[in-house]
Amino acid sequence: MSAPFETRIRDSFARQSMMQTLGATLTGIAEGRVEITAPILEGSRQQQGVAHAGLTFAIGDSAAGYSALTLIPEGMEVMTTEMKINLLAPGAGDTLVARGRVIKPGRRLMVVQSDIFAVTDGAERHIAMMVGTMIPVDL
Amino acid sequence: MSAPFETRIRDSFARQSMMQTLGATLTGIAEGRVEITAPILEGSRQQQGVAHAGLTFAIGDSAAGYSALTLIPEGMEVMTTEMKINLLAPGAGDTLVARGRVIKPGRRLMVVQSDIFAVTDGAERHIAMMVGTMIPVDL
Amino acid sequence: MSAPFETRIRDSFARQSMMQTLGATLTGIAEGRVEITAPILEGSRQQQGVAHAGLTFAIGDSAAGYSALTLIPEGMEVMTTEMKINLLAPGAGDTLVARGRVIKPGRRLMVVQSDIFAVTDGAERHIAMMVGTMIPVDL
Amino acid sequence: MSAPFETRIRDSFARQSMMQTLGATLTGIAEGRVEITAPILEGSRQQQGVAHAGLTFAIGDSAAGYSALTLIPEGMEVMTTEMKINLLAPGAGDTLVARGRVIKPGRRLMVVQSDIFAVTDGAERHIAMMVGTMIPVDL
Repeated sequence: MSAPFETRIRDSFARQSMMQTLGATLTGIAEGRVEITAPILEGSRQQQGVAHAGLTFAIGDSAAGYSALTLIPEGMEVMTTEMKINLLAPGAGDTLVARGRVIKPGRRLMVVQSDIFAVTDGAERHIAMMVGTMIPVDL
Repeated sequence: MSAPFETRIRDSFARQSMMQTLGATLTGIAEGRVEITAPILEGSRQQQGVAHAGLTFAIGDSAAGYSALTLIPEGMEVMTTEMKINLLAPGAGDTLVARGRVIKPGRRLMVVQSDIFAVTDGAERHIAMMVGTMIPVDL
Repeated sequence: MSAPFETRIRDSFARQSMMQTLGATLTGIAEGRVEITAPILEGSRQQQGVAHAGLTFAIGDSAAGYSALTLIPEGMEVMTTEMKINLLAPGAGDTLVARGRVIKPGRRLMVVQSDIFAVTDGAERHIAMMVGTMIPVDL
Repeated sequence: MSAPFETRIRDSFARQSMMQTLGATLTGIAEGRVEITAPILEGSRQQQGVAHAGLTFAIGDSAAGYSALTLIPEGMEVMTTEMKINLLAPGAGDTLVARGRVIKPGRRLMVVQSDIFAVTDGAERHIAMMVGTMIPVDL
């Protein structure tokens, strides 16, 4: 039996067409934690051939947002109000994995974090860290 | 006659496959300033049907990076080390325009800003502001 | 005759004991804009003798917060929820001037900016840029 | 016997007059980790009587910077280039403790984090999280 928030997140994710464009999939959902994985597609690169920061940001932002969504009442959504990314290493590898989690839940604001890893032959390298704020909004 | 940096930027942009995926084009290049425009494609949306923050970030980051590239010596590239985005309004409209510029040039670090606007029937709305740091690297 | 928000801001500022500790004074109040000036006291320095980033941040944060306060209803306060500072140059000089302004007003969130300048013999140098979010709260 | 970096950090800290003004002391030094503790002095408050964000930022920034300093060669210093603070709860209590650590060391840039806690009767509450970038510079 899935957690009550799981269906909500899978439904919302399915409507994020950007996730399909990037080939991203939901690979983990737990209370306060969501994981999204994406291949580094031919069409997701920057000028040197590694992952564009836009890919890293997009899956990191969605993972963080959905981690917040696991903690808010049904009938509400979350929106990103601000997000900072620190890039730690180039996005070189086969896939990127973004792990979002809630640092500080709140009725008005939720502080969230995403850590993004590049995976090469199963080995993970920490390539980015994001910290931001989500705001609950009525659907 | 184009500025010496214009060819470099057009060549680099053409190698950013993510820009093609998003339908983005270079719509302005001047010393310390670069503009990138992208339609809000069917495949670039979040769950409510407006632009995904990943689109906003991707073109804002590239515009900011290329604005820095206009100011550094040939044979060098720039990389984003950190970037924060404050989202001011939903990305609803026909296209997004990102205008990047250099706030503070430097040999080791360059502080850059991008402002992103959603355009509907020619009217612009300021939807996001980004401030970050670019670092010059050898090609 | 002063603007209706001016008294509120002067009263609130007078209660910020940190501003007195730093020798800071309110040097400008207008709708959506507030300026705070502080000497670089002997006791406000970092290890190399220039202004500590804590001084820069403290007056920049207060200037930004009070610029937001000019736009919200009486009986409410604002609190900083997040703030990023990019340091552009060392804080060397006689005084620092922080100029805060509202980038995006809002009922739930206000995005604000502060620019901080070091002043030496009347000449200003841009030493820091801050962008953050203020949230209105009941007093 | 103290670690080789301990003396360097204690000497540098002693020259940060802002730390004395705020009553801050070094309460922990280890490789890649530094802790700074400060009372919430009468003169370090905002208008509602709790710690001014400037205090939180000042000790968080210094703790993060010194955590980076433990990892760089002698004869060099570090400078903050950017720092974001997310405020999680009001700074109410007797003292603040800032714990800085290095997330990603590097020759050109170091990404650092500080977590700041308010302590009341020995109980800690997480009040702020900071992530930023330090740059090594010659003394």
